Amino acid sequence: MDRRFDTAIEEVKKAKKFLVVSHVSPEGDAVGSLLGMALALRSLGKDVTAYLEDPVPDLFRFLPGADTVVHNLDNARPFDATIAVDCGQKERLGKGFVNLKEPGVVINIDHHATNDYFGQINVVEPGASAAGELVYDFCKAAGIPFTKDIAVNLYVAIHTDTGSFHYSSSTPESFIKAGELVRAGAEPWEVSRRVYENHPAKKYKLLGFVLSTLDVVNVGDNGTGKVATLLVTLDMFRQVGAEKDLADGFVNYARGIEGVEVGILFREAGVNEYKVSLRSKGDVDVAEAAKSFGGGGHRNAAGFTLKGTLEEIKAKVIAAVKEQFYATHKA
Amino acid sequence: MDRRFDTAIEEVKKAKKFLVVSHVSPEGDAVGSLLGMALALRSLGKDVTAYLEDPVPDLFRFLPGADTVVHNLDNARPFDATIAVDCGQKERLGKGFVNLKEPGVVINIDHHATNDYFGQINVVEPGASAAGELVYDFCKAAGIPFTKDIAVNLYVAIHTDTGSFHYSSSTPESFIKAGELVRAGAEPWEVSRRVYENHPAKKYKLLGFVLSTLDVVNVGDNGTGKVATLLVTLDMFRQVGAEKDLADGFVNYARGIEGVEVGILFREAGVNEYKVSLRSKGDVDVAEAAKSFGGGGHRNAAGFTLKGTLEEIKAKVIAAVKEQFYATHKA
Repeated sequence: MDRRFDTAIEEVKKAKKFLVVSHVSPEGDAVGSLLGMALALRSLGKDVTAYLEDPVPDLFRFLPGADTVVHNLDNARPFDATIAVDCGQKERLGKGFVNLKEPGVVINIDHHATNDYFGQINVVEPGASAAGELVYDFCKAAGIPFTKDIAVNLYVAIHTDTGSFHYSSSTPESFIKAGELVRAGAEPWEVSRRVYENHPAKKYKLLGFVLSTLDVVNVGDNGTGKVATLLVTLDMFRQVGAEKDLADGFVNYARGIEGVEVGILFREAGVNEYKVSLRSKGDVDVAEAAKSFGGGGHRNAAGFTLKGTLEEIKAKVIAAVKEQFYATHKA
Repeated sequence: MDRRFDTAIEEVKKAKKFLVVSHVSPEGDAVGSLLGMALALRSLGKDVTAYLEDPVPDLFRFLPGADTVVHNLDNARPFDATIAVDCGQKERLGKGFVNLKEPGVVINIDHHATNDYFGQINVVEPGASAAGELVYDFCKAAGIPFTKDIAVNLYVAIHTDTGSFHYSSSTPESFIKAGELVRAGAEPWEVSRRVYENHPAKKYKLLGFVLSTLDVVNVGDNGTGKVATLLVTLDMFRQVGAEKDLADGFVNYARGIEGVEVGILFREAGVNEYKVSLRSKGDVDVAEAAKSFGGGGHRNAAGFTLKGTLEEIKAKVIAAVKEQFYATHKA
């Protein structure tokens, strides 16, 4: 028996009017967990408001329940309870929620290790690959059957947050839960078609330009310590008529090259100003490399903004990565 | 109780000297199933020869047991039994096997619907996402515990053949088995790092050129029936110093664009000669479109070679795709 949700389930039984919320700039886990939880509560006959400060990204608008999400709480009546999913800090739920006078009992269900336990009730499991796994566990513990609509949402949450089961966060339970959700009606190809085969043509045009800038250098001895760099300029964005977020994820092409320890994307942000994204594939700690530039992140992903010419910035960043490479491999 | 392997297991108990084989041009499922089966038999104390006509692709050389694969059976002594995995026809096992005088009892374990039951014992399950799933089932039925080395091989077989659990072949069982293999020691990120984050730099340079040729046209009315085309020329291969197979899979970038029903890659093969690959995302049957050019494949993937100028070929192929688009959507 899973007892982690006992207190939460007690509150859920008492409450009638619910607010379900997730973080700003929502991705698959935020949207899928939010909608999975909202649909689960509705299946119990509860009155549920699903709220996101930001719009549901186009890719996830197909998810069952996405059309019920509201983006304004100004005239909200009091809630008996709020369930926040996939969010470590109250502020990341957006100002609409922060300004809300009567959220009721706040139940915080999350998988971020950095969660600050902002709820009155907190179920925080850093070992879960996705908040969607915890909503799955909540449904099981509360005896809520998985409808097809709930299953699709939680499946998308888990599939996207594990990077199609590529990341080390993919545990045996992640797979087993995904399997149960497919049994309950989630369709892997239908989901993939909509989530992973749905790129704007402009994005691939832009990627073409960006890949033409690919450069691989060695920071170690004898061909070791490969670092791959990519560049995206404002002019490239202009040429394809693309918005800036279309380059999101391009840094993974640099990291994905054989033998590369660190992939770097330089994104022109203005005159002599670049946003720098670092991705590490092995043990090199890119958050440490980012620190010296006032940036942050974690071991395998970090970022910051620098002023200077591209040549200056590139030299500085590669030197910092080199230092971390030696710190790692001499250690 | 899984009884499908009863006859096979009886033979396995009797036999001492085994040959394990899989198909030419092996991919992840062929290599993973082959090595998983070989290691499972070795764990029973059997004498096992693992054979592939072709080399183990670089990407899969890290798999436990890959260094034991042989590519020549000319001086092979008689075997008591041969287990073929992931192969529908005897001929696809390669001429080394076809010419082999004494393969012993041939046990054919496969998931291709087109399997012609070439074995004396045949376990053919088109519902399995990968032959790796069937080797998993065989181990379970035979009471062979999953060592970490067996688990990694079968995990790679399933993960690659389901396209990272994107394809419709991904059943609840596929996920649940993958989860059990992770429990037995397969490490998702370690596998992904080696299999999916290991691209030659030349490949991405080539992709840059290819994406610059991206063209999207409509074959239906009112913006429907999007078809995306990409081109790779001999000159592009020359410029990056790349081998031809580096363009494998590029057609998926065409298919992966939003609203696109069919993605097409034209690959220059010689003077006025092009290899054409078609990929469909929905219901349009590209095998039908390929038929008129003497090509083959299945509903969602087909190919053929055509002679003529690029302009002529492009016009003909798009016309054939248009016909199939109307056949599908008017039906």
